[in-house]
Amino acid sequence: MTTTVAFQGEPGAYSELAAYEYFGAQIATLPCSTFEAVFAAVGEGRATHALLPIENSLAGSIHRNYDLLLESDLRIVGEYHLHVSHCLMAVPGASLEGLRQVHSHPQALAQCQRRLREMGLEAVIAADTAGSARLVQQRGDPTIAALASRRAAAVYGLQILVAGMEDNPANYTRFLTLTRSQENTDWQEDGDYKTSVVFSLHNQPGVLFKALSVFALRDIDLTKIESRPIQGQPWEYMFYIDFVGHVRSQVCQRALDHLGELAPFLRVLGSYPRHHG
Amino acid sequence: MTTTVAFQGEPGAYSELAAYEYFGAQIATLPCSTFEAVFAAVGEGRATHALLPIENSLAGSIHRNYDLLLESDLRIVGEYHLHVSHCLMAVPGASLEGLRQVHSHPQALAQCQRRLREMGLEAVIAADTAGSARLVQQRGDPTIAALASRRAAAVYGLQILVAGMEDNPANYTRFLTLTRSQENTDWQEDGDYKTSVVFSLHNQPGVLFKALSVFALRDIDLTKIESRPIQGQPWEYMFYIDFVGHVRSQVCQRALDHLGELAPFLRVLGSYPRHHG
Repeated sequence: MTTTVAFQGEPGAYSELAAYEYFGAQIATLPCSTFEAVFAAVGEGRATHALLPIENSLAGSIHRNYDLLLESDLRIVGEYHLHVSHCLMAVPGASLEGLRQVHSHPQALAQCQRRLREMGLEAVIAADTAGSARLVQQRGDPTIAALASRRAAAVYGLQILVAGMEDNPANYTRFLTLTRSQENTDWQEDGDYKTSVVFSLHNQPGVLFKALSVFALRDIDLTKIESRPIQGQPWEYMFYIDFVGHVRSQVCQRALDHLGELAPFLRVLGSYPRHHG
Repeated sequence: MTTTVAFQGEPGAYSELAAYEYFGAQIATLPCSTFEAVFAAVGEGRATHALLPIENSLAGSIHRNYDLLLESDLRIVGEYHLHVSHCLMAVPGASLEGLRQVHSHPQALAQCQRRLREMGLEAVIAADTAGSARLVQQRGDPTIAALASRRAAAVYGLQILVAGMEDNPANYTRFLTLTRSQENTDWQEDGDYKTSVVFSLHNQPGVLFKALSVFALRDIDLTKIESRPIQGQPWEYMFYIDFVGHVRSQVCQRALDHLGELAPFLRVLGSYPRHHG
């Protein structure tokens, strides 16, 4: 069966690049206009996997996707850290000296602010990075450029004038791979895994401390904590925690049993091989 | 000295409404186009206070404002929970039956989705709620309405056709009041206060658990935890914690001294009277 990976954005988006880097070149990809549509594509079987950005090392969490993970019953089966590097691209034959405008997503423009100022280019906001590359191709105007991925340049037949435009090179986006299967990934006792869980807590003094104790007292390392509001219960939260370990290991199972004593709601979103780098 | 309160948005914005509810009717207000401009207005003395939305009970934290709190040296001196209730408003003489379109901020439109669908109105996106009210006034067209605050209707001379348009009435925004003064607010031993702090931690197993222990072991109640990425250090975080108590009380001072043993960076953003409701 072909691996078909749904992602949010247009062909050439960073999410599509991450899909190819994670799964390899032989996959099919399915562009979707919204994150909701990505979940639906996998839920309805039009795609085998979803690739979902969950956090950027400069901009922070993509909070909407935490909410969608909770609403959906897809399971996390992998993670991938993509190094985000913006390329300045224009139609073949264009030159740096002839450029006037650069189109891109506001976040990409912000991340290349210093370089763009030095180059004296006018920034124009677009809905997404790959869409701005498509626009540059369609216009055919050698005075306009796009900031997008190396892959977008290939997809739209554009020429890369400058690679690595970003002011801060430590720019990574963490993606999650999701499937419909309710199976956990294979487990090996000496493997290196992460597990993602979501839970609620009673509004009592010290309750978050107690919840974290189930991990700390078993030397389980947390890599991320995120909270999201519970609709209709002002100032109460769902907590999302990523920790090192697999749900099938005895120590993690005991920690989750212990957490279940404290948490009125608890769900394991998945255990998956940890990506270093 | 007149109290002048800087806020982000146009006259009639929810932030301006919160400013009047918090400070009273005798203040002057200073509309600013961005949150950065709000901080600058207070920093440069053009306003005595800033009123900054930090969290909505449905949409979650306004993360950009956490980053700005860290960058700025303004101090938090108050908090206010505004009940957000959207009114459907149009020019005087307009009728519900004659309406075709409703303009507003995407979040307000989303929060009234069910009612708007029942009423068969086309939703049109605007930059902010108060700006949509101004547009309805300028157009003078009785077929278009805005979703905005009761105050926006008064500011722009519009007629409220339906109040309480939101699908979920448990819609509150928490605002912080900021000033330049580095003084803490008055402290009374039996007073009811909150304190906001921001700190970093070494990336070590169990370190967040240890950090929370400085509060839990002293029975200090946490009301909020938020994390934001540290620029240039992928997957490391600044933690923002709100807890019940005043920095001048001995128990809180000891907790913060203890936290300082663990945290390479620690700053108190302010202690202030707690707002219930």
